[in-house]
Amino acid sequence: MTGPSENCTAQGRIDLKLPQRILLGPGPSIADPRVLRAMAAPLVGHLDPEFLRLMNGVMEGLRLVFETQNQLTLPMSGTGSAGMETCLVNLLEPGDRAAICINGVFGQRMADIAERAGARVTRIEAPWGRAFDPATIKEALAKEKFDVVAIVHAETSTGVLQPLEEIGQIVREHGALFVVDAVTSLGGVRVGVDRHLIDACYSGTQKCLSCPPGLSPVTFGPQAMQKLQSRKTKVQSWYLDLTMIAQYWGAERVYHHTAPISMMYALAESLNIVLEEGLAAREERHRAISRLFVEGLAELGLEPFVPAEIRAPMLVTVKVPDGVDEAAVRKFLLDRHNIEIGGGLGPLKGKIWRVGLMGSSCTENNVLLLLEGLRRALAAARA
Amino acid sequence: MTGPSENCTAQGRIDLKLPQRILLGPGPSIADPRVLRAMAAPLVGHLDPEFLRLMNGVMEGLRLVFETQNQLTLPMSGTGSAGMETCLVNLLEPGDRAAICINGVFGQRMADIAERAGARVTRIEAPWGRAFDPATIKEALAKEKFDVVAIVHAETSTGVLQPLEEIGQIVREHGALFVVDAVTSLGGVRVGVDRHLIDACYSGTQKCLSCPPGLSPVTFGPQAMQKLQSRKTKVQSWYLDLTMIAQYWGAERVYHHTAPISMMYALAESLNIVLEEGLAAREERHRAISRLFVEGLAELGLEPFVPAEIRAPMLVTVKVPDGVDEAAVRKFLLDRHNIEIGGGLGPLKGKIWRVGLMGSSCTENNVLLLLEGLRRALAAARA
Repeated sequence: MTGPSENCTAQGRIDLKLPQRILLGPGPSIADPRVLRAMAAPLVGHLDPEFLRLMNGVMEGLRLVFETQNQLTLPMSGTGSAGMETCLVNLLEPGDRAAICINGVFGQRMADIAERAGARVTRIEAPWGRAFDPATIKEALAKEKFDVVAIVHAETSTGVLQPLEEIGQIVREHGALFVVDAVTSLGGVRVGVDRHLIDACYSGTQKCLSCPPGLSPVTFGPQAMQKLQSRKTKVQSWYLDLTMIAQYWGAERVYHHTAPISMMYALAESLNIVLEEGLAAREERHRAISRLFVEGLAELGLEPFVPAEIRAPMLVTVKVPDGVDEAAVRKFLLDRHNIEIGGGLGPLKGKIWRVGLMGSSCTENNVLLLLEGLRRALAAARA
Repeated sequence: MTGPSENCTAQGRIDLKLPQRILLGPGPSIADPRVLRAMAAPLVGHLDPEFLRLMNGVMEGLRLVFETQNQLTLPMSGTGSAGMETCLVNLLEPGDRAAICINGVFGQRMADIAERAGARVTRIEAPWGRAFDPATIKEALAKEKFDVVAIVHAETSTGVLQPLEEIGQIVREHGALFVVDAVTSLGGVRVGVDRHLIDACYSGTQKCLSCPPGLSPVTFGPQAMQKLQSRKTKVQSWYLDLTMIAQYWGAERVYHHTAPISMMYALAESLNIVLEEGLAAREERHRAISRLFVEGLAELGLEPFVPAEIRAPMLVTVKVPDGVDEAAVRKFLLDRHNIEIGGGLGPLKGKIWRVGLMGSSCTENNVLLLLEGLRRALAAARA
């Protein structure tokens, strides 16, 4: 460095001394130490036979976690939003019709991306903090013909867990492809890709998989593959073009781009951890710890933002009481107790906190710590 | 896992036992142990004030390595090809004219991406293994008006180091933006973004920066920023949209996507290592070690593919002698001695080896090891 600055040490180096945080925000979650150790192993080449074996293992592990038989199941080399863009730009061509269900930030983002891909987008809207009734979707599809219908499983901006039952069947009968955002849900609650008739699904590594951010697992079913193979135009993104990426992950092993090797080690180990615990036990843990937290909230006089029946266990949103400065509470928790929680986005800014209880962050002791921290932060805010 | 397979252990786990390789291929290079340790630190949140401080440090470090004053200098959340796509989709709108200089795979890739962005592309071609004469480019620009002119600094598919002198001036006088691919060169030889009048430049972390793959440093100069701000259409990729990403890296800190935290730790430490050594000393090391290797090749009766004056020191391509099975040589090196080198791509498949002497891989002992390994591999191939 040319000289010291506030971002560097006196020796002009980028300062890597970082605090130890308890990550209870909307992501990243705490990465398991096993995952961090796996990530730090020396690199092998991205075409090394031993790395190709690891890639196959990751694909198998992801199929189990997505609960799918889909051959094309792999991590994209970007974070969750890259997975969102992957699904939409590969399945949509200019002029295609997309129905996007919007009840939060991530539904909005899907609509934005679909429009950038040249699709004609219809927005099916529900209030932020509420889920979609399958009947609403059925009605919307009855009025107009769509190529793709997309919905968010766990809306990270509101804490709503969208029930997926019935919707896949409605979309399939309509002849459209069903795309589901499972960024926050995968590894926390079961997504059941095949059972829910999902044609394309994407996730992120830094939520309930408790792996650092940097990869986005996606899975494409047979109907989605058919669309991919019958496209009339090239996928607009070269980097996210699954017609090419599938050739690197498939038998051909055609070089596309250099895979993020270390992140792949991390994901492999995080899949091992998820599968050792088991999807059912993991869902039960997320539900139980979440209940514990919500019970504790009541004792503090706090209320969850989302009704119990559609509340995402891994992301509990909490109403900010009148007269409390929500940012000051978060700052108190972070500065005094190294606890990170999130604030609201968009119309919910200043109105809710977002508490992530995801993967390795989702423990009874973290809930106890946060409740006591919140009690003190609220007392300070009201003092 | 449901059961054991060839990719998992008998316990059904994804097997993370991987060999220790000497990485002397076209990337990834060997990551410095300091980088791997930095990467394995516990995560902080992507909006944590301490992480924002680290991001500022990374931007400062990247400016020094790119040799630029450009404010918009940051790592994109993807590998080098994501950086290529970032530069092209942000600077090109449908109907814009791009001149792409092609003398290898990565020039071809730029043309493909520019076309997907809706640009009208003119290909300026040179033989694979040769560099462009500035006069050729001047001539091409005299015939037609272009918005963007793009060229590769170190062509990873051929081992050519393109001299950048004069070209920037020609492009600027023509009124176009000058885009340079520095994926393989950055951190090995000096790129000199400001000195060479480069308007937009991108790189990767896994070459001469000796950091794992997963991030792509990019830098945009004032003219490129002007184009960005005067676009009539949205950038077609949401994930790579610099108009939004700049707001996360700038004073506003607007959430865009979750940054790959661990990779950022790794990049910060790798920038520290590069800047401790110094750009001039680092270039000298790459040139000296490269010469040592080429001298050794002569003793083995092998010849470099590229003439000395345009040979990329960090990526030496070697002609495969008649009658030698190039893949068998690579397999021998990998299986017997854990040494990875690369094969040729496209028209050079089977005709050259690609030897990377990049960053931490670029040491005298690695050259000695490879030369002796090659001697044995060639003897075996001829036996």
